[in-house]
Amino acid sequence: DHKQIVLGHGSGGKLTSELIEKIFLPAFSNPILDKLDDQALLNIGDTRLAFTTDSFVVTPIFFPGGDIGRLAVHGTVNDLAMSGARPLYLSAAFILEEGLRVEDLCRVVESMRAAAADSGVHFVTGDTKVVNRGKGDQIFITTTGIGVVEANVNISASRAQPGDCILLSGTIGDHGMAIMSQREGLEFESEIASDCASLHDLVAQMLATPSETTDFLHCLRDPTRGGVATTLNEIAKASHSGMLLHEQSIPVRESVRGACEILGLDPLYVANEGKLLAVVAPEMGEAVLARMRQHPLGRDAAIIGEVVATHPGMVLMKTGIGGTRVLDVMFGEQLPRIC
Amino acid sequence: DHKQIVLGHGSGGKLTSELIEKIFLPAFSNPILDKLDDQALLNIGDTRLAFTTDSFVVTPIFFPGGDIGRLAVHGTVNDLAMSGARPLYLSAAFILEEGLRVEDLCRVVESMRAAAADSGVHFVTGDTKVVNRGKGDQIFITTTGIGVVEANVNISASRAQPGDCILLSGTIGDHGMAIMSQREGLEFESEIASDCASLHDLVAQMLATPSETTDFLHCLRDPTRGGVATTLNEIAKASHSGMLLHEQSIPVRESVRGACEILGLDPLYVANEGKLLAVVAPEMGEAVLARMRQHPLGRDAAIIGEVVATHPGMVLMKTGIGGTRVLDVMFGEQLPRIC
Ligand SMILES: Nc1ncnc2c1ncn2[C@@H]1O[C@H](COP(=O)(O)OP(=O)(O)OP(=O)(O)O)[C@@H](O)[C@H]1O
Ligand SMILES: Nc1ncnc2c1ncn2[C@@H]1O[C@H](COP(=O)(O)OP(=O)(O)OP(=O)(O)O)[C@@H](O)[C@H]1O
Ligand SMILES: [Mg+2]
Ligand SMILES: [Mg+2]
Ligand SMILES: [Mg+2]
Ligand SMILES: [Mg+2]
Ligand SMILES: [Mg+2]
Ligand SMILES: [Mg+2]
Repeated sequence: DHKQIVLGHGSGGKLTSELIEKIFLPAFSNPILDKLDDQALLNIGDTRLAFTTDSFVVTPIFFPGGDIGRLAVHGTVNDLAMSGARPLYLSAAFILEEGLRVEDLCRVVESMRAAAADSGVHFVTGDTKVVNRGKGDQIFITTTGIGVVEANVNISASRAQPGDCILLSGTIGDHGMAIMSQREGLEFESEIASDCASLHDLVAQMLATPSETTDFLHCLRDPTRGGVATTLNEIAKASHSGMLLHEQSIPVRESVRGACEILGLDPLYVANEGKLLAVVAPEMGEAVLARMRQHPLGRDAAIIGEVVATHPGMVLMKTGIGGTRVLDVMFGEQLPRIC
Repeated sequence: DHKQIVLGHGSGGKLTSELIEKIFLPAFSNPILDKLDDQALLNIGDTRLAFTTDSFVVTPIFFPGGDIGRLAVHGTVNDLAMSGARPLYLSAAFILEEGLRVEDLCRVVESMRAAAADSGVHFVTGDTKVVNRGKGDQIFITTTGIGVVEANVNISASRAQPGDCILLSGTIGDHGMAIMSQREGLEFESEIASDCASLHDLVAQMLATPSETTDFLHCLRDPTRGGVATTLNEIAKASHSGMLLHEQSIPVRESVRGACEILGLDPLYVANEGKLLAVVAPEMGEAVLARMRQHPLGRDAAIIGEVVATHPGMVLMKTGIGGTRVLDVMFGEQLPRIC
């Protein structure tokens, strides 16, 4: 057991979930938190509210395809959207390091403004703190969001059932490799851009797929830290079901694949900031997929596997050469401070 | 104009409000945010929600009377309470520095648990990030809160009117001087403890004061960063009214006064974390005061002045020796990282 916090505790993988399960959950436990969904669902009056928070500590703060501010808006909007919520309001709390260039702050704030406007959400409250030089890193932003979930929508990682289709909304690894390529000064740097985008509209389109099956959209998660492999493990664990993926169906850009090879990373474990995984009733898989492909953020969507009754709690993948590989949750600190 | 962020931008005084007014408000402006109350009031369905966020970056993280975790609970509960809300749910986002002792994290989490239990609120969602050694300072916590405001309650800094009484719930400067005494190793260290406490129950008692005047509680604010003087300036500005205080009526502990003298600080500008300022209809001042004094957190409550029609937007104080002093908002960085 660790006596000190290490970078891996923030990677979104095994160490993060151990920290949450050993330290935070025992202290804070309640039925809402214990679900460990991407957002809390609160019944307030006649309304079902979604409520979620994320701190953003990405470095560098500007990167191809975005910056820390844009990320802070889309990231929180997406954790709301993963409940099927309509995102409404955000708060923004800033921890600024003494010496931060006001010009850089203005650039970040402007991109938050633009991202919020694009996503149809409003910043209604905020906070501003400053820490001494060398006690922060330019800028950290914590955004918290509120949205409203319609009465008939019921999405949770625990709802995956054997037979369900697993859908992915597009190519994987773009966000993480945009940051890593820039950090490492790879030649791919200019080609790979973060996929950072708000997914609530795509989710609304998915929910509106014509259907005789009510309640066909069982689970939604954005595969951020830890990537697709870690997120599917979370769903497998929460639903006590198994997952079987087909490697060849998983979309990866050539440039991302190349950068991953150079850095010895597996795209399945690399963070995304504008992608979702969906678990859908079997008879609705193709219809939801078609609908996703009509949306600009779902053009490369694919069915990547199915939920199975065998190996509950585990994620397996049929590889291109016909083998079967176990995809465990991410371990270690391969991609620190990616969001 | 500053080209770089300085510590004073986080002091809660003039530089902070300039940063908010020049950079954040122009980008994020909307009618809810623009009120600059301690919390946003949101109409969702039939419910009036209060929503507020604060980051905590206090150093040291443990101090007489509390720690950063306790502060993070009471601080956010209080910004909800200042709308008259019943606080319900909190989120907690942690930014941990690599190398933080897990033992210290556990201590902080345990005091958050206890403070939340005392305050009747639940942590329903969270986030955990880790930054490299030397890029953070042990632990930063951002708490965001949601509460419900009854339909007949209408509290806002803009509602102060000439004639209204200004009430203060107890002694000032305890929190800030507990931290400063510890930092400076003053002999008072052991005597001065943070006043850190949740004020929602005191507010509920105040709202329940028997009255024929509906809506007698006009403004509530917790005088945190910048202290009583800065907070009253905010109310004066928002309500376009003047304030006249009576120095001798303002309760200050002897130990706090002594520590302030040694450090050259004015208790009127020192942060509190368990005190409130209230602006109350004139005929209700005494009744509300009596009610406050019955509450453990209001035992030392006092009427400290009144709202006046002269000098709108300004705070004046009749001093002990009969003069009149202008109390401007705090300038500079005299008390960095106090919360
Ligand atoms: N410090 C914490 N205290 C309580 N719950 C936490 C804490 N950190 C995370 N959680 C909970 O653990 C679950 C997973 O959190 P996590 O931050 O990994 O999800 P996410 O926000 O969807 O991912 P990311 O942060 O990579 O965007 C969520 O249910 C969250 O509420
Ligand atoms: N970065 C920001 N963006 C938008 N609004 C902000 C920002 N920082 C502060 N505000 C707003 O400015 C007002 C004052 O904020 P401030 O943090 O001083 O209040 P507080 O939380 O009551 O005090 P403290 O932080 O000392 O506890 C609030 O209405 C808040 O929503
Ligand atoms: Mg997230
Ligand atoms: Mg998520
Ligand atoms: Mg604040
Ligand atoms: Mg506050
Ligand atoms: Mg306040
Ligand atoms: Mg998170």
